[in-house]
Amino acid sequence: MASLAALRERRPLVHNITNLVVQNTTANALLAIGASPAMVVCLHEVEEFVAVSQALVVNLGSMAGDWPASMRLATRQARECGVPWVLDPVAAGVIRFRTHLAVDLVKNGPAAIRGNATEIIALAAAVLGSGGLGAAGKGVDSLHGSDAALASARALAAQVQTVVAVTGVTDYVTDGVDTFAIRNGHAMMPFVTGLGCTATALVAAFLGSRGDQPALASTAHALTVFGVAGEVAAERAAGPGSLQMHLYDALYTMDLATLRERGRMSI
Amino acid sequence: MASLAALRERRPLVHNITNLVVQNTTANALLAIGASPAMVVCLHEVEEFVAVSQALVVNLGSMAGDWPASMRLATRQARECGVPWVLDPVAAGVIRFRTHLAVDLVKNGPAAIRGNATEIIALAAAVLGSGGLGAAGKGVDSLHGSDAALASARALAAQVQTVVAVTGVTDYVTDGVDTFAIRNGHAMMPFVTGLGCTATALVAAFLGSRGDQPALASTAHALTVFGVAGEVAAERAAGPGSLQMHLYDALYTMDLATLRERGRMSI
Amino acid sequence: MASLAALRERRPLVHNITNLVVQNTTANALLAIGASPAMVVCLHEVEEFVAVSQALVVNLGSMAGDWPASMRLATRQARECGVPWVLDPVAAGVIRFRTHLAVDLVKNGPAAIRGNATEIIALAAAVLGSGGLGAAGKGVDSLHGSDAALASARALAAQVQTVVAVTGVTDYVTDGVDTFAIRNGHAMMPFVTGLGCTATALVAAFLGSRGDQPALASTAHALTVFGVAGEVAAERAAGPGSLQMHLYDALYTMDLATLRERGRMSI
Repeated sequence: MASLAALRERRPLVHNITNLVVQNTTANALLAIGASPAMVVCLHEVEEFVAVSQALVVNLGSMAGDWPASMRLATRQARECGVPWVLDPVAAGVIRFRTHLAVDLVKNGPAAIRGNATEIIALAAAVLGSGGLGAAGKGVDSLHGSDAALASARALAAQVQTVVAVTGVTDYVTDGVDTFAIRNGHAMMPFVTGLGCTATALVAAFLGSRGDQPALASTAHALTVFGVAGEVAAERAAGPGSLQMHLYDALYTMDLATLRERGRMSI
Repeated sequence: MASLAALRERRPLVHNITNLVVQNTTANALLAIGASPAMVVCLHEVEEFVAVSQALVVNLGSMAGDWPASMRLATRQARECGVPWVLDPVAAGVIRFRTHLAVDLVKNGPAAIRGNATEIIALAAAVLGSGGLGAAGKGVDSLHGSDAALASARALAAQVQTVVAVTGVTDYVTDGVDTFAIRNGHAMMPFVTGLGCTATALVAAFLGSRGDQPALASTAHALTVFGVAGEVAAERAAGPGSLQMHLYDALYTMDLATLRERGRMSI
Repeated sequence: MASLAALRERRPLVHNITNLVVQNTTANALLAIGASPAMVVCLHEVEEFVAVSQALVVNLGSMAGDWPASMRLATRQARECGVPWVLDPVAAGVIRFRTHLAVDLVKNGPAAIRGNATEIIALAAAVLGSGGLGAAGKGVDSLHGSDAALASARALAAQVQTVVAVTGVTDYVTDGVDTFAIRNGHAMMPFVTGLGCTATALVAAFLGSRGDQPALASTAHALTVFGVAGEVAAERAAGPGSLQMHLYDALYTMDLATLRERGRMSI
């Protein structure tokens, strides 16, 4: 897990175009793990800001007037500048507008895509043109276990030539050939809003400071760190309110000894 | 209090068009009590999303470019689809733009309206055309005790044929004929931002999972659950920061025994 | 420190046009210290709302469609109504759009400007026309210590005839002639997002309730209260998550005895 040490040393600037629910919590998680977050969505600002960032998050959880246009500009700029970017296709498969936007954005070459099972199944179906949208979630929550999305994740990763992460009770991270499975996290985590979005932001931070490490391994490490932090936090928590608070503390104090002891990542 | 068990079993999808301050905290409260929240405000998305939701919240606390248009579309769609929706007329009576918007939205038949005393007095005056706007608050805080708004609440409920809740030291819930009084909650709660908005969201969750129960009883139950959770949280808190954290834990762990012991709802 | 007692007695209504990351946290900090916050950014609402407020915050941390226009309207109205307003030039020097907007807004006579070292160096260079933008930060984080910005702060304050606060390990507050130094706060505070924005909001609350006290002293008092609260919170914290929670509790319970014992403000 040299990834975490590299992240803290390089302190990557992570540019987030993310939803209204997690603006504060995502920024706090990025600071706690050792990255430098900024949330910039304005059409007049995104290109200039992508160019000075080490990674970009594009999370579809909130749409407003010119946000879709900002997402298009920012991801095109990221591709041109060689800045790794991560797509979080929130509610793809539930709202057609988002499914279509996600399909478009994917053309700008994300370094990784992270979603829940329903989102990944829907996005894979839409990208691969396998008829219909393939899934319909319940709002922003998944209707499927992550196992059910593994084939979709592999096919999507192979087609787009990216890394796809499906999070759930077990997290899967695949580039279409190799697949990591991560069995960390806690059953209380889905009762805190936006922890999937937070996982996506941590993936971006690891990708933005990974040096020569493959994106597959960096993404898997990010999700392992997040899952272990969630476990540590849940053990101290009396409910989702205290879980959320302890989560930032756990990210801030995370060390290699804890990761080695608790991390359950396998290939 | 079969309402809480029904909510947790049905896990209603609650669509929120709500303000920027409470996007995160409202979602967390809904998750903690057992509902499935989603915050969708985009003009291209709201109609599709209302149609798959069990309840809708329209909270006027933030206005931006096309948010008023989204609120009009969403509430019209809710009426057509039979999805119960709740209006939170934040700062009605203080800002004319919002007072007028609230009056317009009311025409789309909310299942309930929840506000503080100043907001309900102002909205009742505007809807009933009783000359002037009837009240002027201090920003988003109430200048009146809830007792002072009871007559307005009854008149508004009768005119609009809805349930009106006025929250304060005592919460009143009325359909214009019958009135519940709820004497729960804690004096430290107004020092946490957006707890009125959170109460509104819980009302929506109870309305979206109530089955055959009248909206009057469901609304009163929601406010009782919230008031009891606030009391439990305040007893553990050293200030409003820890109160907020404990509130989610208290909603998550709320059970019938605690409600029976502490609930002070009367008709 | 009669300022804090005056604030709690007068309970100033603080109108915030602030960024998406800190909408909730800033409101909570203002409530905890004893002010009445409202977050109103809509073009149709800001003029009416400024007129009934005791202070205004304009924080450039988020830009969207019509937010810059709202900021122009609101600050012009504040000048006309004699409402003290505070500028937080987030990321000035990093994003040209914001640097230029900040220069424009300054013409509407802020009672105070609060930023980190990089922002103040950049804004001073842009306002004073001293060639180029003078600084380039790393996203929203400062690349400079506050000492390095002291000359810029004095020059900016003298030119604009306002109070300029540079926060960092030592906070400096100057009107171009006299300068306060405040040595409170804690090294863990930069790991919580938006605490600079929170400091700005507290400055506004103190300015909005200061009576005859000079803006220089009120600003310095606000930053001392905030720094002491941060220290108290950090001593109880296991990381940035618990620091943030304890911070609201510390603001809520702050008293003169604690301020006298811990405050390290000198001129």
